[in-house]
Formats: sequence, structure tokens, C-alpha cells
Amino acid sequence: MTTETDLRLECLGKEKAGVLYGVGLGPGDPELMTLRAARLIGGADVVAYPALVGGESLARSIAAEFISDGTAEIVVEIPMTAERPPAQAAYDVGAALISTALWAGKDVVYLCEGDPFFYGSFMYLHARLSSDFQVEVVPGVTSVAACAARSGRPLVARNERLMVLPGPLSEDELRIRIEGAESVAIMKVGRHLAKIRRVIDGLGLVDRAVYIERASLPNEVVCPLAEAPENAPYFSMILLTKGADPWL
Amino acid sequence: MTTETDLRLECLGKEKAGVLYGVGLGPGDPELMTLRAARLIGGADVVAYPALVGGESLARSIAAEFISDGTAEIVVEIPMTAERPPAQAAYDVGAALISTALWAGKDVVYLCEGDPFFYGSFMYLHARLSSDFQVEVVPGVTSVAACAARSGRPLVARNERLMVLPGPLSEDELRIRIEGAESVAIMKVGRHLAKIRRVIDGLGLVDRAVYIERASLPNEVVCPLAEAPENAPYFSMILLTKGADPWL
Repeated sequence: MTTETDLRLECLGKEKAGVLYGVGLGPGDPELMTLRAARLIGGADVVAYPALVGGESLARSIAAEFISDGTAEIVVEIPMTAERPPAQAAYDVGAALISTALWAGKDVVYLCEGDPFFYGSFMYLHARLSSDFQVEVVPGVTSVAACAARSGRPLVARNERLMVLPGPLSEDELRIRIEGAESVAIMKVGRHLAKIRRVIDGLGLVDRAVYIERASLPNEVVCPLAEAPENAPYFSMILLTKGADPWL
Repeated sequence: MTTETDLRLECLGKEKAGVLYGVGLGPGDPELMTLRAARLIGGADVVAYPALVGGESLARSIAAEFISDGTAEIVVEIPMTAERPPAQAAYDVGAALISTALWAGKDVVYLCEGDPFFYGSFMYLHARLSSDFQVEVVPGVTSVAACAARSGRPLVARNERLMVLPGPLSEDELRIRIEGAESVAIMKVGRHLAKIRRVIDGLGLVDRAVYIERASLPNEVVCPLAEAPENAPYFSMILLTKGADPWL
């Protein structure tokens, strides 16, 4: 079967199509962007980024000072719903917009909070576009590394194990996985805070846990878990370190 | 008890001592350094870094082009041995050299491969110096994020769990932990490659595993685990992704 894509490839030649860059921006402070991210954004024909419908784009705000005048912008509008099908339809539309620019020979820099392949929405575009176009992923500083830095507590040393868990998991699952590692990062805490606290409390580890909100941003919060606010935003994390003192 | 440190603090005042920066350099390509890392290195009174006795320092080589003329350098010499006591003695010496510079009011930028708190030697200096001096940790791109980017395979999405394991763990431990996560990064593969392959083979997951050596460096290797070389260097990693296709 000859698809529209095949036909276009034949006409244009894959080597003449633009390159899609999935660029990690780091946790939020623009200075925690990599030099490559800043260079690619500054030289981009087109930047693309996700934004909630009618809302600001955090990714764009992190990169704002590096975007050159005259750079075209593609907004991938994500509907305000937790349901999967509408968001996936949004990525279909976004991928179509981005591929139009790529077929026109323009490079597109897709802006990703944190790291593109670490719980990032870029992977939905990667899944749709990587078979037709050249894609380069530029890794970024993850929120886990940023939270560890801000908490002032080393994450893992020597032969320690690190477990990264999303907050929505069940209490039983959280308990089992926390027990199987010296250090644990629990992401996407938000409305799951009370449940996660119960689990950590039950394991007697509250004094080893730090709560971090919006690491590296101006409104950052870092405190012991015992002092965490009642209402946690989506961009919050709990770090648990059970390992030995690294002195010896 | 009044220690020498207390006396010095009294004489000088903690606010007049220098600041110790633990700066992540990322996985190896200098362009994957953060803007803040480059700025701090370029403006440093003193840079410090680990090096094997008589050997090159990978950290210094990553940062080389950003170090200004006239910047003083402190080498923390690590003996070529796997035993713990000699290395810890080396960090005692390193911490003493660094603290002398800090007491003299100089800021010291300690260069760390990857991220300072992610299996980094900086934590040994942090443990020795953070109670006496102001310490700021600048997070970096981890080798895990770099390897995922270079392998072209998303690491974790949605409510997936990520397990980071050091290669020296036992076969049983590796098997149990691999079973408990959708994605797994196995670090420090080196001479443990054959053992790790046996475990992954036993779980029927060889076709989901990628082998990466020196991600982002000129002599990088990325290949399916089945095609990995017999002899893996210390800086090698295996990424396993069992999660569903992110398309839907």
C-alpha cells in the first residue's frame, strides 16, 4: 500500500525534510537548560510545545528568552480532561501540524519540560512521527535530579537501588516498591498526597522523606514530608532516602 | 567542645567563607552541560575534580573549554583500587584542600560527571563539608536520560515505574527488581554483562533491551543487547522497556 507519506517521501526525499528535535528544558529554571537546548531553540525555524486549551504553556515560558524573533510557533493544544481519547486526538492534530512544517523542509524544535522521554508528552509525537522523519532527542535535567539537589540529600550511591513511582499507584503497590529500594522518588503527588503519607507513615519512614513542589521555580517549596501542605499541586514530588550515610 | 572549625567560623564568619558548588556536567558531551554549570565554571576562583592517580580526569575533560585562564585547580586523587578505605582517605584529603580554599573566601566549583547526587563522588565531599560551608548542588543530565535519548526509546510514561539498578547486584536481586517495573536501567554494567544478560534472557526480555556505552561521547556504542560486545567498560548501561506502545 502506498500511503500519502510514501508519496511525499518520493517527491521530496527524506533527506530534504526537516529534523524534529525533542528538546528537554529541565525542571523550570531556564538556567538549568542545556547549552544544546538553548542553541537549538535560538536557531529554530519552528518551535512547537504543548499547552492546555486556553492556558499558558509552562514549556514555552521556560524557553521564552531563547526563542528568536521570527520563529514560527506551533501550539499542541491539550484539552483539560483526564480522559485518554481526547488527548490522543490532540496529539494527532499536533503531529499533523508538525509534519506539515517538516515536509516543507523546516526543522521543528519541540519544547519538553524536564526530559523528553521521562514522563514527557513528547513520546506521543515521537510515536507518530519517528518512522517518517529524522528525530533527535536532547536529554534534559529531570525533576528527580532537581528535587534531590534542592533537598540537599544525595539520591543514590554505590550499589543502591532507585525506584521512581507515580503517585496514582495503589497503596499496596507503593508499599511493595518502596520496600525494594534504598531510595524512592514519588512523582505526580498532587491529590494522592494523603494516601502516600499513609504508606510512608506505615513503614516508619516519615523522617526520611522530603516534600518538594515546583523545584527550581520561584515559588518552590522544600520541606520535611511531615510539614507538607494539605493540598499538593500536580508538579510535586516526595523523595525518600533510606541509604547509609555516604561518609564511609 | 570547640573544634578548629568552630574557631575558624568565629574568626572569619561563615558568610565570608566561599561557597562550594557541586556542579553536574551531564553524560559527556560538553553541550549537554547546563547554562548554569557553564556560567559557574567560567567564573570560578577554583575548580576541583576527581582523577584516578596518574590518570586523566573525565570530569575535567568535559568542562575543559569553559575553565578560564587563571582559575586554580584542586585535583582529588582517587587511588586505583576497589577497596573502600583508601578512597575514603582520598576524599578526606580532597575535603581538606577544598576547605582551605573555602576558608580563604574562594568559591569552589566541584566538577561532577552526570548529576552530583546520582551515583556521584560529590556526595563524599558533601558529607564532609556541608555542615561547615554553604553548598549548592547544580543538577545535571543523568546518563539514564542520555542513554534513553540515544536509544530512541521512551523510558517511562503515564503510571509506569522505573527501576535503576547497579550491575553488581546478585542475579536473584536483579530478577526480582526487573519484574517489578515497566522500565529498568542497569548501571555500571562492566564485568557484570554476562550475568545481567543471563537474567534478562531468563525473563524472555532480550528483545526489549538496549546496550549503550559512553552515551553522547565520540566513541559511543548503541545496539540491541543481543549484539553487545563481550567486554563492556564500566561506563555502560542496559535499558529495558517493557511498557506499552505510547501511541494510545
